[in-house]
Amino acid sequence: MRIFVVVGHKATTQPNFSLEDIPGTSGRLDILCRSVTAAFVLSHGIRKDVLVYLVLLGGEPPKTIRLAGETLRHLNPDDRTTAALLKKALAVDATPEWSMSTSGIFVRTGDLSGVLEDLRERSVRLIYLKEDGKDYRCLRDEPLEREMAFVLGDHTGMTVEEEALLASAGAEPIALGPTSLHADHCIVVTNWLLDTSAI
Amino acid sequence: MRIFVVVGHKATTQPNFSLEDIPGTSGRLDILCRSVTAAFVLSHGIRKDVLVYLVLLGGEPPKTIRLAGETLRHLNPDDRTTAALLKKALAVDATPEWSMSTSGIFVRTGDLSGVLEDLRERSVRLIYLKEDGKDYRCLRDEPLEREMAFVLGDHTGMTVEEEALLASAGAEPIALGPTSLHADHCIVVTNWLLDTSAI
Repeated sequence: MRIFVVVGHKATTQPNFSLEDIPGTSGRLDILCRSVTAAFVLSHGIRKDVLVYLVLLGGEPPKTIRLAGETLRHLNPDDRTTAALLKKALAVDATPEWSMSTSGIFVRTGDLSGVLEDLRERSVRLIYLKEDGKDYRCLRDEPLEREMAFVLGDHTGMTVEEEALLASAGAEPIALGPTSLHADHCIVVTNWLLDTSAI
Repeated sequence: MRIFVVVGHKATTQPNFSLEDIPGTSGRLDILCRSVTAAFVLSHGIRKDVLVYLVLLGGEPPKTIRLAGETLRHLNPDDRTTAALLKKALAVDATPEWSMSTSGIFVRTGDLSGVLEDLRERSVRLIYLKEDGKDYRCLRDEPLEREMAFVLGDHTGMTVEEEALLASAGAEPIALGPTSLHADHCIVVTNWLLDTSAI
């Protein structure tokens, strides 16, 4: 299983944003929509072996949406369709337990610490994708026996508190290259590297 | 300069599509919009050294839109903003000569053969990104002295006639890996490979 975690620091936790202006009304939920597309969408299908956590911090309480490739339905590659699916998830009355919104999409209250707790239970190898991390080629040095989880920030990066949380969870800071890319483009490259066994 | 050419076989040549349903009303212009984002958008800026040709074949006469990173303005990473820019370009009264729509965006009538003629004049190295092409690593064997142009199809691939045209223009069929990816994701990977000097 490949796991991607994207933190949206201003991403709305409410469904009352406009599909006609997603970037301007949702706290840049568009970044998370494109990350979902990058994680799952193939030319003719959906990656079944992918799990995505979206951490939405633009409301109180914060919420987390989980998307599971195995059962995910109704996903198209455009921003708007994904935003409409997330809107449905945000309309669910979220509790600290997962509630299903549509097939393969689940929501609960909670932030990054909750996601890291889930990942700890799965014993994943935790990678924090960060511009000034170690060169990604260092990942080749170890056999990939464990599931891998990649944590990414949105356009604002990660806070000091989140970085401390990631460090205490044992996350390895890894950089994908010399150019600063959007979160969704980092996910495309990571998927491709894993597909081609380049890491 | 990095050049990307994307052929949209059903992509509308008229501006009367709906920004509320881009995939359903524009002949999948959304694929071309995401290709534009993939080609140009960095985390904090626009790639100046990129040129994109969009070949729109879903109308008569066909049209080609050219986007030049050096002067490109108003580009945001969401589908809708890009579609709005293309809509403006399609509202221009196109002729066989380039007309500017907005800063860095030009339009003319013509199809893939016209683009290949332009590229021939620039003496670019022409790569046709194709699932069953040669492994991309073969590009490492030659020094990259020339500009490179990468030609991609949309969700329907290329026609036999287009493949013949590409072959006679000397295009090398190259595959990026074992997984069939969307055009925009291929562009993300190609940009990343060039950024990291992996090709």
